[in-house]
Amino acid sequence: MNERYEQGMAKLMEIDGAAGEAVTRSLEDVCPDLARYTIEFPFGDIYRRPGLDLKSREIATVAALTALGTIPQLKVHIHGALNVGCSKEEIKEVIIQMAVYAGFPAALNGMFAAKEVFQERDSGK
Amino acid sequence: MNERYEQGMAKLMEIDGAAGEAVTRSLEDVCPDLARYTIEFPFGDIYRRPGLDLKSREIATVAALTALGTIPQLKVHIHGALNVGCSKEEIKEVIIQMAVYAGFPAALNGMFAAKEVFQERDSGK
Amino acid sequence: MNERYEQGMAKLMEIDGAAGEAVTRSLEDVCPDLARYTIEFPFGDIYRRPGLDLKSREIATVAALTALGTIPQLKVHIHGALNVGCSKEEIKEVIIQMAVYAGFPAALNGMFAAKEVFQERDSGK
Amino acid sequence: MNERYEQGMAKLMEIDGAAGEAVTRSLEDVCPDLARYTIEFPFGDIYRRPGLDLKSREIATVAALTALGTIPQLKVHIHGALNVGCSKEEIKEVIIQMAVYAGFPAALNGMFAAKEVFQERDSGK
Amino acid sequence: MNERYEQGMAKLMEIDGAAGEAVTRSLEDVCPDLARYTIEFPFGDIYRRPGLDLKSREIATVAALTALGTIPQLKVHIHGALNVGCSKEEIKEVIIQMAVYAGFPAALNGMFAAKEVFQERDSGK
Amino acid sequence: MNERYEQGMAKLMEIDGAAGEAVTRSLEDVCPDLARYTIEFPFGDIYRRPGLDLKSREIATVAALTALGTIPQLKVHIHGALNVGCSKEEIKEVIIQMAVYAGFPAALNGMFAAKEVFQERDSGK
Repeated sequence: MNERYEQGMAKLMEIDGAAGEAVTRSLEDVCPDLARYTIEFPFGDIYRRPGLDLKSREIATVAALTALGTIPQLKVHIHGALNVGCSKEEIKEVIIQMAVYAGFPAALNGMFAAKEVFQERDSGK
Repeated sequence: MNERYEQGMAKLMEIDGAAGEAVTRSLEDVCPDLARYTIEFPFGDIYRRPGLDLKSREIATVAALTALGTIPQLKVHIHGALNVGCSKEEIKEVIIQMAVYAGFPAALNGMFAAKEVFQERDSGK
Repeated sequence: MNERYEQGMAKLMEIDGAAGEAVTRSLEDVCPDLARYTIEFPFGDIYRRPGLDLKSREIATVAALTALGTIPQLKVHIHGALNVGCSKEEIKEVIIQMAVYAGFPAALNGMFAAKEVFQERDSGK
Repeated sequence: MNERYEQGMAKLMEIDGAAGEAVTRSLEDVCPDLARYTIEFPFGDIYRRPGLDLKSREIATVAALTALGTIPQLKVHIHGALNVGCSKEEIKEVIIQMAVYAGFPAALNGMFAAKEVFQERDSGK
Repeated sequence: MNERYEQGMAKLMEIDGAAGEAVTRSLEDVCPDLARYTIEFPFGDIYRRPGLDLKSREIATVAALTALGTIPQLKVHIHGALNVGCSKEEIKEVIIQMAVYAGFPAALNGMFAAKEVFQERDSGK
Repeated sequence: MNERYEQGMAKLMEIDGAAGEAVTRSLEDVCPDLARYTIEFPFGDIYRRPGLDLKSREIATVAALTALGTIPQLKVHIHGALNVGCSKEEIKEVIIQMAVYAGFPAALNGMFAAKEVFQERDSGK
């Protein structure tokens, strides 16, 4: 594998941990190339960039995924946000704020996703 | 006017300044109630909450508006992000990152909005 | 032309009037078939159905187009809503309500569209 | 609790009944503030406004939620629409009409949600 | 039934087979008219048009449904694409490409849908 | 510059020609890194993949961008589709078909974009 992949995988493990690895593994038998791109571009290219700290990057991602309503990826990145230093309180504030920009249904569905992730982690995963 | 409105208007002026005031003024002759809600709920209730700093709140908003593609509001909040302490670099990082979550067209249209706002401000508005 | 087209065109004229006719005419040189479908299915099949009055149908359409942010069609249907008996007040209420379900940017952009339509009509079109 | 909350809770009970109360209760342990905002702004501020009857408000909401594809909230508001006087026939007409504006997948997924709600109610909930 | 319906049903069976028929059957007790429109307009009017071959039409549909994130309909049309001559490889390429235009979450959710459909068919449905 | 960039730029020129180059040039003074990613990932990684011909790739892209309503990028890729061998007729068929999946407003706005691109090209660009 190439350098972008190696560096992306290291960054993916730093941010998302087991939850991120599970996504790429579940792609292995259907489309390993999409798994590779998911590591190379987002994690090898983007999250490794200087100019914005990881905590702010996860705040941006949680905001966007709540607004777009893509719940499985939101759950992975709520794990990620907690892993890189966001508090539960901060994550909930981001999700509440999305009621303003994407409407209450988006915020409610995001908060229910957060509730599930918090419960998983509190019960020792 | 009530307390939520007064406090919301103060917060709106702190964050968005003239760009935010222009939005509410342009609603005055068609629907002053929507202008009032726009001040009371987002700015009186949400942005005044403790638990997340204003800079992180604007990062979340710039991310969501880029992902959703609502350009007029994105431009107001790029002003807002700069006003509360985000650097141009940080704003550009948030927008680049949206290529991952909402696709390249969303990121490109967001970056062109940022370019316009930066040019307005560099030319003394 | 067939019966669905004839009946659809009559319904289109009843609801949208000149604003709707302008849309189909602007398609004539690029894709008359899409113009035909736009008359046959929405207006020939759907708006002619019993079971929901035209005023309620336009309320549903104004709500959806505000939420989806497709402004040119929203403007046509704000004309339509006024033509079939909605008051300006009722249209504004529908648009305000979309702040709850699709967020404030969608509601604001919808209200600015309404402002333009109201001004066109007040100035004798 | 404040007046907007009290009035909002009364309006929520009038419109959504048990289905609405279940939503706010499920937020209680993760984010009671979002539950409170969900009552204060949509129900305390918006649904209590004069200028549009409750039946028309629920038609607008069912239209928007079908178009946006947020199914859990759509189901709550199909209950709401029935509670404030919409017939099943009228709700189905609104959902069919969304095929025109948001495409057939949105209309089909909305209709399957309606089918579930109708079955729940027919079976004594 | 009319000619558009008869021709649409034949086209639906040619493209989607059992998966498409299941959709229309599940609508029968709640809204047979929406089932009829789903056959008449998409399959009776659109897919029967000359000017674009069926394989290209299914590529367009798989692309759009992946981008829009409407998974139940995407699964039906992955069946459809395979039925009219697309290879699994081609379908996966279309879904990978959506990472560029609609973001990685849309592409990932689309690929998981493809994985399910491929498994159903490999196991003798 | 790296190999992915060089190969991506060659592919971009093959597909989009001047229209694509104009996009990357307009990013140069605000965010050259986003211009570089736009060349490396979509064109260096994705469009160069075997397994789907370029004409089918542009059909997928025109479908998705019509459904998502991102008009500036749609116009670039209508140029691209024509450049790699799609006929005007085929492009119009893809756009008409989006009325089924994303609704008539998306199809109408897509067709008006096509009309503009066709006129530009007919007038010697």
